[in-house]
Amino acid sequence: MNFDKEIEEYVNEMTKEYTEELCRMIKIPSVSNDKTKKEELYNILREVERIVKPIGFESEIIETRGGPALIATLKSREEAPWLWIYNHMDVQPAKEPEWKTQPFEPAVEEGRIIGRGSTDDKGPALAVIHAIKFLKSKGLELPNIQLVYETEEEVGSTNFGQFLEENLRSGKLREPRSILVSDTIFSGEWPTISYKLRGVTRAFAKLELAEKEVHSGMAGGAAINPLKVMINALNTCYEGNEVTIPGWKEGVKETSEKELESTKKAAQTINIDTFKKELGLREMSVREEYELLKKLWHEPTFEIHGFEGVQYEPGSIKTAIPRSVTAKITMRTVPGQEVRKLLILLEEHLKKTHEKITVEGDGLPACMTNIENPFIERAQEACKYGFEKEALFVGCGGSIGAVSEMQRIIPQAPVILISQSLLSDGYHAPNEEFRIEQAQKGCKVMAKYISSIAKE
Amino acid sequence: MNFDKEIEEYVNEMTKEYTEELCRMIKIPSVSNDKTKKEELYNILREVERIVKPIGFESEIIETRGGPALIATLKSREEAPWLWIYNHMDVQPAKEPEWKTQPFEPAVEEGRIIGRGSTDDKGPALAVIHAIKFLKSKGLELPNIQLVYETEEEVGSTNFGQFLEENLRSGKLREPRSILVSDTIFSGEWPTISYKLRGVTRAFAKLELAEKEVHSGMAGGAAINPLKVMINALNTCYEGNEVTIPGWKEGVKETSEKELESTKKAAQTINIDTFKKELGLREMSVREEYELLKKLWHEPTFEIHGFEGVQYEPGSIKTAIPRSVTAKITMRTVPGQEVRKLLILLEEHLKKTHEKITVEGDGLPACMTNIENPFIERAQEACKYGFEKEALFVGCGGSIGAVSEMQRIIPQAPVILISQSLLSDGYHAPNEEFRIEQAQKGCKVMAKYISSIAKE
Repeated sequence: MNFDKEIEEYVNEMTKEYTEELCRMIKIPSVSNDKTKKEELYNILREVERIVKPIGFESEIIETRGGPALIATLKSREEAPWLWIYNHMDVQPAKEPEWKTQPFEPAVEEGRIIGRGSTDDKGPALAVIHAIKFLKSKGLELPNIQLVYETEEEVGSTNFGQFLEENLRSGKLREPRSILVSDTIFSGEWPTISYKLRGVTRAFAKLELAEKEVHSGMAGGAAINPLKVMINALNTCYEGNEVTIPGWKEGVKETSEKELESTKKAAQTINIDTFKKELGLREMSVREEYELLKKLWHEPTFEIHGFEGVQYEPGSIKTAIPRSVTAKITMRTVPGQEVRKLLILLEEHLKKTHEKITVEGDGLPACMTNIENPFIERAQEACKYGFEKEALFVGCGGSIGAVSEMQRIIPQAPVILISQSLLSDGYHAPNEEFRIEQAQKGCKVMAKYISSIAKE
Repeated sequence: MNFDKEIEEYVNEMTKEYTEELCRMIKIPSVSNDKTKKEELYNILREVERIVKPIGFESEIIETRGGPALIATLKSREEAPWLWIYNHMDVQPAKEPEWKTQPFEPAVEEGRIIGRGSTDDKGPALAVIHAIKFLKSKGLELPNIQLVYETEEEVGSTNFGQFLEENLRSGKLREPRSILVSDTIFSGEWPTISYKLRGVTRAFAKLELAEKEVHSGMAGGAAINPLKVMINALNTCYEGNEVTIPGWKEGVKETSEKELESTKKAAQTINIDTFKKELGLREMSVREEYELLKKLWHEPTFEIHGFEGVQYEPGSIKTAIPRSVTAKITMRTVPGQEVRKLLILLEEHLKKTHEKITVEGDGLPACMTNIENPFIERAQEACKYGFEKEALFVGCGGSIGAVSEMQRIIPQAPVILISQSLLSDGYHAPNEEFRIEQAQKGCKVMAKYISSIAKE
């Protein structure tokens, strides 16, 4: 058979079916941080089953301590290596007033499918399924495949590790030779293979100084305002976008020359002004592309997102001094930083301002895949084949909890992250979209890649 | 007649009626900062009319640009001086989860009436009405009285000044010789005459750095977080409870020796540990009573109450960097500080950290009544008579917008503030209460005072 011709035909013919399937998936509001939507997490996995069973997958929806997960297995040959394909079927909330269409009533406009979850991560997942469908229908060689889909990615994949461990023990999951993930984003116009993900540590820093809030007319000047103290304390944690907590960068692995070279190469493909404009930023801490990517991929952050226990209502002020405040902090981290240690360092540091400040939190470590392995080479070839452009080796400023967990549990299996989403698709934003052209190219890449590792 | 015997009888016999009337008033949720409750502001004034008309008052509810106000007039003799009695009929919101009873379903327990507005300011107002009812029913001499009740005190009495000016012009309000206000609080166990009120300046400090919020995985480290910048800026405004904004204390009138003497005297009547315990404070910036009162009465403050545009939801963190934040700040001020000037100083100072920070706000100046005048003497005698204790001359850490406005518009009329509420009543707090014993004693004080100034 002529692979090139057949896949070209397949991706052109799949458009209608792909669009209908993705629209049906978007219509299921599988918002994992909304407890009232729990049933929708089951509904979306049932929808996936309806799509993959006809291809030949045997599938099962499995309860976890959190949202349900799906394992769908397509066995080719006893001796073939196992491949896990990870995606997530939950989505971000979609309450932003900026939505022009209903987020869960998909709109199809000029080759784009618009709706919550279109690009994160339902559309890319569906493109991979079609790649397998193509290979299967043409009788091409396949590895043994397990789709491993979860529904808690947007809330940190808290129970995913335990789910993996339990199902590896029970034999429902087979230990994979490698793992394929398609939940990352193009760098500008270029396909990317992500080899490094920042981790994230979430911290709640709390200070309680009174039994109840107190009227500032009655005690203002004598009462101690915990929000003012917390502000003093937080102010010592950073200077601009540098983290100034003592010991913060201890143990951090230095970025290698090879990594910096890839970063420099990637920097040439993006434009800082476009980046700034697309994200709607009026100011940035960096002025040029290489500096930008170094910040995003290789450096830790310290962000304050808000406070519990204080006033937030627009336009009004009550002259009450809060009794207790809790600062919401996240820190993006790099390889070598440990969640537990960072939480302890942060608490110790904040306590220097007020000894009653306590810190609780959790997080995910940063991840890194060794660039020099055959799967990365195959992925590069596949990207070039499908997207018609050289893939860049990139870092990722964000974190994928599931990747951290897979790396922890099966450290010997390389995790290969191939992007299908574009920067302009609107991850976690209103008017999220996925381009059908990306799905077609993505399908070609995935077919090429999966076929090329049928024996690895 | 025997005044002492008659008033003693009256206050004992009024208990049932007083309780019923106050409960009816509390049941009307006249929350001025809730726009959906606008009609309740009319309802509470109609309720007042039902109580005062049988006494002989002619009354009218008057529209202002904000909430309605009531003028109720009881004329005794042409040549008698006019007395204004100011109270407010609006109340604070009551959404605190700590309420043990329904805030607008009054509970009567062991001589206390519990509900929102019981002590601030419906209960004290009603005690004054009963004092007038007593005097009238016994045919005792009275000044010409106008009850001037507003419904915007808890939102800063923004329209009260204009209301006074218009109704003085139209003749509905008669220029008073003096003004009686009962909206202040006992100092510990002692009745008080407040001669000095701090002002309050409210400021919204805003910084907007992006068109939309941005995912910290996508831009964290490159994007500039306006909450972090605002925290840097706010941190430079204070050290502990001292305000460190340059020029802040310029123009402040020094506290006189005589004032400090009164303060020292008042300090002997309170206990700092009781104060701390009753307000539920675990820490304070001061260690002894005199220091405490100097802080509360004679020194300005800088409080941060919260932020608009940031995350506040309990227990969760979204890894999004806010696009815009607005800090909610109030400053208690002392005589000599001007609202406009303070807002300009604050903006200039915050701009040193980031030039895009802007400040908007408003406020009320501090107030001071000359201690040496006959009304103050009569008030002292009346307090001793009713509360059986020497009244203290005190400052007040809080602000009463209406007092500022009355002082501005009729500077020649002394404003006499006599407390009925106890520190433990819970002003602006959950489980607000008013003791019937305080109403009875308050009624005696007010009857004595009003009767004693019938010719002044």
